[in-house]
Amino acid sequence: MIITCKKGAPQSEIDKILSEFKTKGLEVNLITGTSYNVFGIVGDTTVIDDRRLMSNPWVENVTRVAAPYKKVNRLFHPEDSIIDVDGIKVGGHEKIVVIGGPCSVEGLDQICELAQDVKDAGGCMLRGGAYKPRTSPYAFQGLGTEGIMDMVEAKRRTGLPIVSEIMSENKIDEFVKYVDLIQVGARNMQNFELLKALGKINKPVLLKRGLSNTIEEWLMSAEYIMAGGNENVILCERGIRTFEKYTRNTLDLSVVQIVKKKTHLPIIIDPSHATGSWELVESMSLAAIAAGADGLIVEVHRNPECAWSDGAQCLKPDKFKAMIDKARAIAHVIGRDL
Amino acid sequence: MIITCKKGAPQSEIDKILSEFKTKGLEVNLITGTSYNVFGIVGDTTVIDDRRLMSNPWVENVTRVAAPYKKVNRLFHPEDSIIDVDGIKVGGHEKIVVIGGPCSVEGLDQICELAQDVKDAGGCMLRGGAYKPRTSPYAFQGLGTEGIMDMVEAKRRTGLPIVSEIMSENKIDEFVKYVDLIQVGARNMQNFELLKALGKINKPVLLKRGLSNTIEEWLMSAEYIMAGGNENVILCERGIRTFEKYTRNTLDLSVVQIVKKKTHLPIIIDPSHATGSWELVESMSLAAIAAGADGLIVEVHRNPECAWSDGAQCLKPDKFKAMIDKARAIAHVIGRDL
Amino acid sequence: MIITCKKGAPQSEIDKILSEFKTKGLEVNLITGTSYNVFGIVGDTTVIDDRRLMSNPWVENVTRVAAPYKKVNRLFHPEDSIIDVDGIKVGGHEKIVVIGGPCSVEGLDQICELAQDVKDAGGCMLRGGAYKPRTSPYAFQGLGTEGIMDMVEAKRRTGLPIVSEIMSENKIDEFVKYVDLIQVGARNMQNFELLKALGKINKPVLLKRGLSNTIEEWLMSAEYIMAGGNENVILCERGIRTFEKYTRNTLDLSVVQIVKKKTHLPIIIDPSHATGSWELVESMSLAAIAAGADGLIVEVHRNPECAWSDGAQCLKPDKFKAMIDKARAIAHVIGRDL
Amino acid sequence: MIITCKKGAPQSEIDKILSEFKTKGLEVNLITGTSYNVFGIVGDTTVIDDRRLMSNPWVENVTRVAAPYKKVNRLFHPEDSIIDVDGIKVGGHEKIVVIGGPCSVEGLDQICELAQDVKDAGGCMLRGGAYKPRTSPYAFQGLGTEGIMDMVEAKRRTGLPIVSEIMSENKIDEFVKYVDLIQVGARNMQNFELLKALGKINKPVLLKRGLSNTIEEWLMSAEYIMAGGNENVILCERGIRTFEKYTRNTLDLSVVQIVKKKTHLPIIIDPSHATGSWELVESMSLAAIAAGADGLIVEVHRNPECAWSDGAQCLKPDKFKAMIDKARAIAHVIGRDL
Repeated sequence: MIITCKKGAPQSEIDKILSEFKTKGLEVNLITGTSYNVFGIVGDTTVIDDRRLMSNPWVENVTRVAAPYKKVNRLFHPEDSIIDVDGIKVGGHEKIVVIGGPCSVEGLDQICELAQDVKDAGGCMLRGGAYKPRTSPYAFQGLGTEGIMDMVEAKRRTGLPIVSEIMSENKIDEFVKYVDLIQVGARNMQNFELLKALGKINKPVLLKRGLSNTIEEWLMSAEYIMAGGNENVILCERGIRTFEKYTRNTLDLSVVQIVKKKTHLPIIIDPSHATGSWELVESMSLAAIAAGADGLIVEVHRNPECAWSDGAQCLKPDKFKAMIDKARAIAHVIGRDL
Repeated sequence: MIITCKKGAPQSEIDKILSEFKTKGLEVNLITGTSYNVFGIVGDTTVIDDRRLMSNPWVENVTRVAAPYKKVNRLFHPEDSIIDVDGIKVGGHEKIVVIGGPCSVEGLDQICELAQDVKDAGGCMLRGGAYKPRTSPYAFQGLGTEGIMDMVEAKRRTGLPIVSEIMSENKIDEFVKYVDLIQVGARNMQNFELLKALGKINKPVLLKRGLSNTIEEWLMSAEYIMAGGNENVILCERGIRTFEKYTRNTLDLSVVQIVKKKTHLPIIIDPSHATGSWELVESMSLAAIAAGADGLIVEVHRNPECAWSDGAQCLKPDKFKAMIDKARAIAHVIGRDL
Repeated sequence: MIITCKKGAPQSEIDKILSEFKTKGLEVNLITGTSYNVFGIVGDTTVIDDRRLMSNPWVENVTRVAAPYKKVNRLFHPEDSIIDVDGIKVGGHEKIVVIGGPCSVEGLDQICELAQDVKDAGGCMLRGGAYKPRTSPYAFQGLGTEGIMDMVEAKRRTGLPIVSEIMSENKIDEFVKYVDLIQVGARNMQNFELLKALGKINKPVLLKRGLSNTIEEWLMSAEYIMAGGNENVILCERGIRTFEKYTRNTLDLSVVQIVKKKTHLPIIIDPSHATGSWELVESMSLAAIAAGADGLIVEVHRNPECAWSDGAQCLKPDKFKAMIDKARAIAHVIGRDL
Repeated sequence: MIITCKKGAPQSEIDKILSEFKTKGLEVNLITGTSYNVFGIVGDTTVIDDRRLMSNPWVENVTRVAAPYKKVNRLFHPEDSIIDVDGIKVGGHEKIVVIGGPCSVEGLDQICELAQDVKDAGGCMLRGGAYKPRTSPYAFQGLGTEGIMDMVEAKRRTGLPIVSEIMSENKIDEFVKYVDLIQVGARNMQNFELLKALGKINKPVLLKRGLSNTIEEWLMSAEYIMAGGNENVILCERGIRTFEKYTRNTLDLSVVQIVKKKTHLPIIIDPSHATGSWELVESMSLAAIAAGADGLIVEVHRNPECAWSDGAQCLKPDKFKAMIDKARAIAHVIGRDL
């Protein structure tokens, strides 16, 4: 950690700043510059609050050299983490996973039919929303527990592990019991109480990146879950908010290699929410595989015009299958299987 | 609501799109354009999900004419709402309110001393965080219930109503019992389960704008609370995320008059989180008053360098008082009192 | 074009708004809504200035149904445009092009050696900056005319057409004489005087997207060039500014299919500026090809640590070749050649 | 400047990195950290290109301690710069200036009438666009030289110095001859050839901040002009692009005090372009004065609905006068005059 101080700071102020480091066992080095004095702090600086240092009027700037995350950091965990989702392995050199299913569970028949479609196309997990985060209180809010139980039945019939979004710590027990991969949505990426609760369980968590969050903030949210004791975290990029109006969000595929460099966690891509348009889903899915992603999570619906939510971004099952076939060929080019 | 359809859409597709409107009692008007056909839908279109319409490949675009919010909308509630916070009136032509206090409650003595400082300076409510949303799991997370009880004692001694942030629906009972103005932080602005829970109580809610949310999304979150039955909502702008690195966030003061035009709710400004720097707090506070805000919420600390969180953005009590005195003079210029 | 008017507007105001349309031969349709009246304007509305309409206080909103561009619009030019760059065809179903070369021309030997490296690796055009847009006036500003002449010699030796950035209309004659594909950089995307000057020549123009511009603004800049009479425009995405700090910019690959849907122009991708890091260039290049791009423009340098600018994002020639080989295999998967 | 290197870098690589500093007379200090080694470079580091350092694969990060600008920096020029615009002083403790006038010059009568209106209301300079940067090639592009000559006549009649936007280095002679304060628009903030040309003249330059540029980039553009020899620079904030759709741009008033802290240059605010709506102009003007701005530049038109451009954001002369009267009272509160 580097602390830049204005010239002319009285020794008493300098001592005030530095005393904290010494009591925490950190080593302090001074570089005397032309316009500023610079202190380099050596040791585990994740315990230091940089904004508190900034409150001293003699401090011009505080810069971290080391990342603020530890559990997530590849520096301290060089090998890839492989996450086991009810028998399906995700990450490392494992087969690339494709998760498919509707935005919302709309009933038992719908989800069971779609589960079969997903399986037939080559998908290996079933997604479906039972609790839906909707901007408007007047929009469909999901079937709730009934939707979860419909997915459980679809899993019984097809064998596909199920993925669903949790919106409240109050539902943790239900999700631990029934859901194989618990999704934290973009809007809850910094719902810290929910993250803490997920840190205390053992089920894999699919942590989506927030709409306007940096990769570092996203990794800090993963750190919350892992610091609590649950090391089964899969990251999911689903597009970020930009000024562009022709897409719902802007898919950031550069995260794939960045996440792999900074962390040991698997990363999958959601091209459906990222684009908001089924016409863009195939091209973004193929691009994600070419970029090195460990998986895809794609919205699929037999009749998108009648979907209860987000029909605009659903692929029909035949298009979903066609996409998977091309994605597999691309995976082979870069030395992966799917 | 305006639906733009590509030329050449078969009548069966058009009928499919339009049938839903007719069953919902909405009226449909057709304008035949040169490159597109346009349908105008008349009636209460808040019940229509525009993304479902977009799933039809013949639909090029869907545009809302009317706002998607109702309870919040000034169109249907022309007079200003005045919110009563334990006897202090906020909004309309009432006195401008100034809320002061530390980022975090650090103990009984600290909060009681500061409450007196805030009162002496001319502040009319006390803020203080007991549950803190922190990016890092290793940072101080707040004193919790103990912090709330310290604030209750500070209120008993000074008479100042108290404002504190709620981070989980599980704490609703505690907040209803002890806190006068329940703050929803920026990161929870779209924590819809929390908003629904707050809709069922009667205590005033201070709803902060999310870091990257549009005003419309913010008003939709207010609509969640009001649709649930709690009409005591005060909006709070606290800066949005931009590319700028010299400030923590960018304070958007144009919201003041926009909120007053679009809604009947009061709006207050948080210059501390918006800037992240005490050196900017006075100028942004005065600007907020000049812009017409109904109040300010400002971080105050006797010894910012030792604050347990966010010391960099705290005013010392004497600077807080000096700011209030100037703010009062500016309020008089625009015909308000403070 | 849809104009939303407040209820209660006096007929004289309505007449004032509508009279302009009638004199321009546009047809006006009225839809009477519950909260607003809506006018639909039919005809060529690109001649209407929507911000002038907004100045009428009775107008609530103005929305365009049709795109504001004509020459660029695929609606009026359904077949793909193929741009000929000194014999190399770009766009449609032509071979995907790979352009390589250094950020800055550093001298005759450097550019001639690199031109041969690019050719050997499978590249088909040579890039090199002679005029450099630098944030700092103290940074290297490019070799100017000397750099252009060095590229001309490199072309003579290798046969590769050359691509270079123009920064001022005053250099048009030099570029028309010597450069095969004239690049407009991101910072000049809305330098309208430069765009007008490029509209009057016949040489192909490579139009980069601005750092924070929407696709629509980018297409309007292409429209400037085409409206002037030069229809040889190739679009280039080079990353947009986002909040992310781990990359220089964020590459937006969804533009590829959007550009192909909205326009008939070719689109190529610059993964070097988009990421700012050579470690990300291969994965983003492969993703771009998988997404359907018509080409790549990649920075290559034999000795990146000594590059006079942007060494951090340069591939060495062997890595450039390895990338092209994988890109070719991916191109085959999606039915293209490279 | 702080350079963070990965552990294990061979000494030959370290030497390669450090050799450059030594030849440039900079001093190097080493701090050995737990995960990284850190080099602190002392001296004038504005000559170092940080992106070149990043090209070395052993370098993890490069951070500047000192600002990259010199001429602009208050550290080396502690007293306020006062810029003289044909006799009107701007900056320091001088009277706050109010510049008014139409978006576009529409003819001699219009600009002369408005000049008188501006003067009568208390304005001290006249603005008017003769060369207009328009997103669409089909929109009105300005009267050009004729517009400039109309303004010259308006100045002759009223005595008000004139402010107008330059869009091309080719017009420098015309502007030097006739215009008192030469405006560089947001879209040309990084048109470096134009900035260099303006560095060679002596007329004051009004440098607007780019739509998505950071304050540092803005100051670097001012540095371009000053490094060329022209020290007469006034900065102008005109709103930045954000996700908000209810305003044209988002006015960032925190720049006022930041600019005053980092630089010695005057700063004025343009509330018209910042908001895009006349209904917001008064509140943002008053807020700007309360925040400490040295001036305002406001669009004024007698008949906004008929303005040739940007009517939506024009004040009528009587509203302009009313705003100035309130602004003056606020100026007095903070110890300034207007």
